[in-house]
Amino acid sequence: STGTLSGRWEPSYIDRMDNFKRAISTALIFGWAMTSFGDEGMYLFNDLPKEALADRHDFEITPEWADELRLASVRFNVGGSGSFVSSTGLVLTNHHVASDTLQKLSTAERNLLEDGFYAADRDDEIEAPDLELNQLVSIEDVTERVRAAVDDDADDAAAAEQRRGVMAEIEKESLDATGFRSDVVTLFGGAKYHLYRYKKYTDVRLVWAPETAAAFFGGDADNFEYPRYNLDATIFRVYEDGRPARLDHFLRWDDAPVREGDLVFVSGNPGRTQRLFTVAALKFLRDDRLPYALDFLRRKEVLMQQFSLGGPEAERRARDELFGIQNARKAYGGMLVGLQDPATIDAKRTAEERLKEAWATKGEDDASPDPWRTLADLQDRKRELLRRSVSLRSELFDRALQIVLLAAEDQKPNADRLREFGDAGRESLLRELTSPAPIYRDLEQFKLADELSRMAELRGGDDELVTRLLGGVGPRQRAADLVAGTRIDDAEFRKALIDGGAGAVESSDDAMVRLARDVEEEYREVRKENEAVDEAERQAYADLQKIITAVEGTGGYPDATFTLRLAFGTVKGYDQDGERIEPTTDFAGAFEHADGHAGQKDFALPESWTSSKGTLDLSTTLNFVCTADIIGGNSGSPVVGRDGRLVGLIFDGNIQSLTSDYVYDDRQGRAVSVAGVGILEALRSIYGAETLAEELGR
Amino acid sequence: STGTLSGRWEPSYIDRMDNFKRAISTALIFGWAMTSFGDEGMYLFNDLPKEALADRHDFEITPEWADELRLASVRFNVGGSGSFVSSTGLVLTNHHVASDTLQKLSTAERNLLEDGFYAADRDDEIEAPDLELNQLVSIEDVTERVRAAVDDDADDAAAAEQRRGVMAEIEKESLDATGFRSDVVTLFGGAKYHLYRYKKYTDVRLVWAPETAAAFFGGDADNFEYPRYNLDATIFRVYEDGRPARLDHFLRWDDAPVREGDLVFVSGNPGRTQRLFTVAALKFLRDDRLPYALDFLRRKEVLMQQFSLGGPEAERRARDELFGIQNARKAYGGMLVGLQDPATIDAKRTAEERLKEAWATKGEDDASPDPWRTLADLQDRKRELLRRSVSLRSELFDRALQIVLLAAEDQKPNADRLREFGDAGRESLLRELTSPAPIYRDLEQFKLADELSRMAELRGGDDELVTRLLGGVGPRQRAADLVAGTRIDDAEFRKALIDGGAGAVESSDDAMVRLARDVEEEYREVRKENEAVDEAERQAYADLQKIITAVEGTGGYPDATFTLRLAFGTVKGYDQDGERIEPTTDFAGAFEHADGHAGQKDFALPESWTSSKGTLDLSTTLNFVCTADIIGGNSGSPVVGRDGRLVGLIFDGNIQSLTSDYVYDDRQGRAVSVAGVGILEALRSIYGAETLAEELGR
Repeated sequence: STGTLSGRWEPSYIDRMDNFKRAISTALIFGWAMTSFGDEGMYLFNDLPKEALADRHDFEITPEWADELRLASVRFNVGGSGSFVSSTGLVLTNHHVASDTLQKLSTAERNLLEDGFYAADRDDEIEAPDLELNQLVSIEDVTERVRAAVDDDADDAAAAEQRRGVMAEIEKESLDATGFRSDVVTLFGGAKYHLYRYKKYTDVRLVWAPETAAAFFGGDADNFEYPRYNLDATIFRVYEDGRPARLDHFLRWDDAPVREGDLVFVSGNPGRTQRLFTVAALKFLRDDRLPYALDFLRRKEVLMQQFSLGGPEAERRARDELFGIQNARKAYGGMLVGLQDPATIDAKRTAEERLKEAWATKGEDDASPDPWRTLADLQDRKRELLRRSVSLRSELFDRALQIVLLAAEDQKPNADRLREFGDAGRESLLRELTSPAPIYRDLEQFKLADELSRMAELRGGDDELVTRLLGGVGPRQRAADLVAGTRIDDAEFRKALIDGGAGAVESSDDAMVRLARDVEEEYREVRKENEAVDEAERQAYADLQKIITAVEGTGGYPDATFTLRLAFGTVKGYDQDGERIEPTTDFAGAFEHADGHAGQKDFALPESWTSSKGTLDLSTTLNFVCTADIIGGNSGSPVVGRDGRLVGLIFDGNIQSLTSDYVYDDRQGRAVSVAGVGILEALRSIYGAETLAEELGR
Repeated sequence: STGTLSGRWEPSYIDRMDNFKRAISTALIFGWAMTSFGDEGMYLFNDLPKEALADRHDFEITPEWADELRLASVRFNVGGSGSFVSSTGLVLTNHHVASDTLQKLSTAERNLLEDGFYAADRDDEIEAPDLELNQLVSIEDVTERVRAAVDDDADDAAAAEQRRGVMAEIEKESLDATGFRSDVVTLFGGAKYHLYRYKKYTDVRLVWAPETAAAFFGGDADNFEYPRYNLDATIFRVYEDGRPARLDHFLRWDDAPVREGDLVFVSGNPGRTQRLFTVAALKFLRDDRLPYALDFLRRKEVLMQQFSLGGPEAERRARDELFGIQNARKAYGGMLVGLQDPATIDAKRTAEERLKEAWATKGEDDASPDPWRTLADLQDRKRELLRRSVSLRSELFDRALQIVLLAAEDQKPNADRLREFGDAGRESLLRELTSPAPIYRDLEQFKLADELSRMAELRGGDDELVTRLLGGVGPRQRAADLVAGTRIDDAEFRKALIDGGAGAVESSDDAMVRLARDVEEEYREVRKENEAVDEAERQAYADLQKIITAVEGTGGYPDATFTLRLAFGTVKGYDQDGERIEPTTDFAGAFEHADGHAGQKDFALPESWTSSKGTLDLSTTLNFVCTADIIGGNSGSPVVGRDGRLVGLIFDGNIQSLTSDYVYDDRQGRAVSVAGVGILEALRSIYGAETLAEELGR
């Protein structure tokens, strides 16, 4: 599902703690303007595609129309999107965006992820342990202030520091002045910097979720395929001051199904695209970064499967993570084979050469730097950095390291801190660090043993850090000792450590805290090197941007940055292997699909469906495809029609769309949605949630 | 299971077609003499451990006793061991050694692998498509002749060629003179060369196999664990001239169960050990070779799982291969974490330093080469060669390449050919190449797409060979085109190509043959480089051998070479996590184990068992452990008592024994067997095979 970028296995999570991060965050930060074609484009809400919509779809987009949609859209901190769908605080997103929360709320006795949930009564709604929803309330251009803060003659490391400093300053000022979460976003490869202000919702409660069998019907086999028949939807409610939030902006439900040819809009947070990466950057992805990521994911997939063999409870504990890993593995695999098709790189090379020629013809500035050369060199540095992992990916270690870093960062002025420890983000960070979500010691030990082994493989068994971390015993023994010697799984213990500051951290004899302290120096060093590479890339991409603007003019959209974007598209079928694929599916098709795969894993519809078959309107649209330009992170995005009414909910892209990370192609590539009418019909006729259906805005 | 080395995922198979091969075949070829302790040792049948058996076990081993056991032992060409168990040609081995055959004999309608088989009547016995069993009839020392053929001043490549030439010559002469399959085996790191003569059995028919649920009870979760309750056994019958072979040498069944403390012997074909690898060689395994192999195996595990999602028939087609991959992944994983334990390398280093000191003290030959230095340098060369893969591991490609190579090799004199194309092995090779076993085009296409992708990752997308092989399209498209354009899956087509020789191969427009031709040159080049490295290692290990002999004297056993060896051990329990593990289990325990894991995959006993529970003698011994020194390849080896009677059947090692590739340790490490009495009881009381049970020798 499009959850490639949603949940814990989105690259930005995978990459959170180590250098691995950089290869991707580069892509994430350095978007790129480009000429779009067809329904291509993920547009900024402060730079709407007026001409394209007027020309292609005879639609006049107004700021009022767009503002209403923007204010009804939310971002999920777990990596997905969603929308407000009633004045009473209801929020619609995907089941696979909610799954992280469903997993955390589940226990051995009550498996919400597997079995679904419905709170007929508001008192039964369950608070998510650590969800944060962001509503984008304003955008401000701060490009000039960021630029002015960076000295012309600063080296990469100094420039990175100056830029980080001014961004933290701007964010802190904005937070103090407005109370809103304030993030400076790097757009167009560093050519523009915008300040995004968000209203935060942190009291988020679960209202309704279907069974995994309905939400992820067809499992890993059907993932990224079409036709589909998935009810990948979940409904939350945001609260303020203990009461359901009263919302002025929310989407009204369209009672009519979409039809082929309909114009639709998607408002969500695409996580990352890398469409104007240079040929050298794409080759780094193809030959190094993606193979590395896939080896990593397959390793973790097998690991989680092994853990699951321990019995039903082990399987339950590992399930959501395993889903996320499999999803990412399938998505990355599709991206890689796309890049391995010689035609892909050839097309990029041709475009690049055309740009170079046009630039040479202009001949404006012979002395200008060659950004292609610089970027090619930088890929070599990134290749070297891949192996310098300092990550031991596990809840226990990640939290311990964050606490250790926080204690040290808190002693510095705001502008000098590592980006995630700035004052502006502090509240969100603390909320995450002290989440009461369960941490399973057996699973953690299993993961840590593998991570210690992985680090030894990456760095070599004789590496100084590896030797120190193993402490003279093997990875399995060491993991057992570490887990036995830590209390980091206890949220109260973490709170006390954070409150105790540097003193508490330094004097702690907790095994995991000591391990994090052992890693800290190397972590900072590797991160510093990575940030210097990032800065050098930023400058090279800014040079490239100048060239593109000189040749092609301005306009277009920047690469995705996990911030709110507007995409548009057409409901449209396609041809595949000589067969016509219709744009919509219905409930009848779901039952047929189940019958056609009887006895196969993940193809059994839940009892709630089979027992409702008689009363259900089987001709109701369940899923549909459109040509809108989406990517992971768009999971849970609302799909609306010309009148702004909700007609669907993005949950996946088909297999042909997996290359959209680096190229949009609407010949077969499609975004896949749950139909709004399908959700309504399911609530009423399958889940006995008539009250909830009535509450949804109309 | 010990099948690490049995079936298609044994390293020697994994390594068959590419440079990857070399890292392991080195280990396989260059055994090493060493001082043994406890019940350690895999002894040559022409150099029996008389003293150890007399001293430790008060057992006087005679050549007559050993010859009888040797002649009752067989080697399976798929990578396992077995034994003759009646005068009427019955052969006992593991289900997981037979599984390759069971898979090949199965169809969508009749799944022998899953459901088991019993031929109550001889006419119902089914011929295996391509099994070859080897009975070792004689051993001759040819060391002097091999040495004399290699010039003192030859460089590595020339020396390798001379050595290969004389070995082919000896084998051909022996074949012509005796009609026996004749293999020259390199022992003690090239210090000794022995000519092994085998009687071949190629008409091998399936008599009885249990269900996978009984043979692999507990699945991947229980694999390499103990206590176990597995009926990992299958019975074949060898035929000659269309009639059951009349055997003079076979094992008689012991009606009494083993008891703790019993002395037992194992006669089988351990595949590979690397116990006297230098520290540098072990580090190469730890930091390069094993991580590489594990990435590969996890990749193939996930791939086969993905294929299996296609439905029951897809699952059936992929099953045996998936089992083998999972088994190898678990075994290699255990080896790697063992090597990552700093204590392992430390112990090796200490032993190495002690040897160096003793050698320096002797001070006999200051001018002698430093084998440790040479071997350390060679590991660097091997590291570089890891990435030069020329393999596209799939049945279709493997066969096409072998046919292409065969056509070229056939034009050279016997002594100049690549080793596997020598006259001595021709009959076995042709049998394998023209096997009527089914090749599934859908599975092949799936695998080929992944292999093309993997080669692009290893060599980089711009690599000349990769570019040529992809032919301008992506891996998936190319795989589809290749499979659509080949008839290599048809055994008759392969026969015609082979009979047509170089002319037919060169003029063939079959897509897979053309692909193999495209690869041929690079394959030969990479192989040549690998063989030069092998030769250099051989010489270095021979130098090291001289030093060891000078310091420690002669005796001991060479590293395993997938040739017949004698091991001995004691039936003995052990302590684990403070708990006493008894040496034997029984049928009652199997039912308890199933109950304890009710609802879990792979823990349901088959209906044949549950319906027989009432009549079965539940106290009959089912599995047992002993301290005998075994390794993958020993799968299916008979276990006999002092009187030479069969008491068990090796099928696994416990998790603590996984490090026995490089160190024997009997504190917890154990070989795991099916008890002979358990097989008898199952045949009689579960499988209604009283006739077969009666036929087994007593």
